[in-house]
Amino acid sequence: MTTETETAGAGDEHPVLRLDDTVHQRARLGILAILSETARADFGYLRDTLGLTDGNLSRHLSVLEDGGLVKISKVFEGRRPRTWVVSTRKGTAALASELAALRDLLNRLDGT
Amino acid sequence: MTTETETAGAGDEHPVLRLDDTVHQRARLGILAILSETARADFGYLRDTLGLTDGNLSRHLSVLEDGGLVKISKVFEGRRPRTWVVSTRKGTAALASELAALRDLLNRLDGT
Repeated sequence: MTTETETAGAGDEHPVLRLDDTVHQRARLGILAILSETARADFGYLRDTLGLTDGNLSRHLSVLEDGGLVKISKVFEGRRPRTWVVSTRKGTAALASELAALRDLLNRLDGT
Repeated sequence: MTTETETAGAGDEHPVLRLDDTVHQRARLGILAILSETARADFGYLRDTLGLTDGNLSRHLSVLEDGGLVKISKVFEGRRPRTWVVSTRKGTAALASELAALRDLLNRLDGT
């Protein structure tokens, strides 16, 4: 159609096309990043580190849990209820794909 | 509160906290990335390169325009209407901040 359109042929797929909103969304990317660093994290730690409200964090954890990317367990430690979150194998792989796409994006833009 | 919470002190702010949803959102990051590569792009090129619908792209362009990150001009080339999009100085700076935060995130996670 236009000259510009023709420059975007197959094999020249833009790296942002490989970003998946489930993982790319800011809070969810933060959750998966933290879980990759700490193996497991509790609800309060994720909330405080990412500056989220309880409701916000709950919503994003549900999206990740529904996608099979995290596992959530509620336990009592003494009398205190505690919510632990761990990444699943699928979550770890999804984060790795996201980071690879981001790396390609950065390399592409650095090269211009 | 918890041991984990205490490890996240001031000065150890997580890089995802520096991501701004206006720029970080997948399609909008793609738009600004393309504009940094091509100086200006027309509507059809952005739509096709990013695999968006017309409505989707319009919505994301409005968010960027409202934030002062892009300028949109509709021109006629012969009889054909064409919508050109360019990044503003603010848009270029916002993309640079986003890329710097992403770079920090990647470095942080590569280091673990």
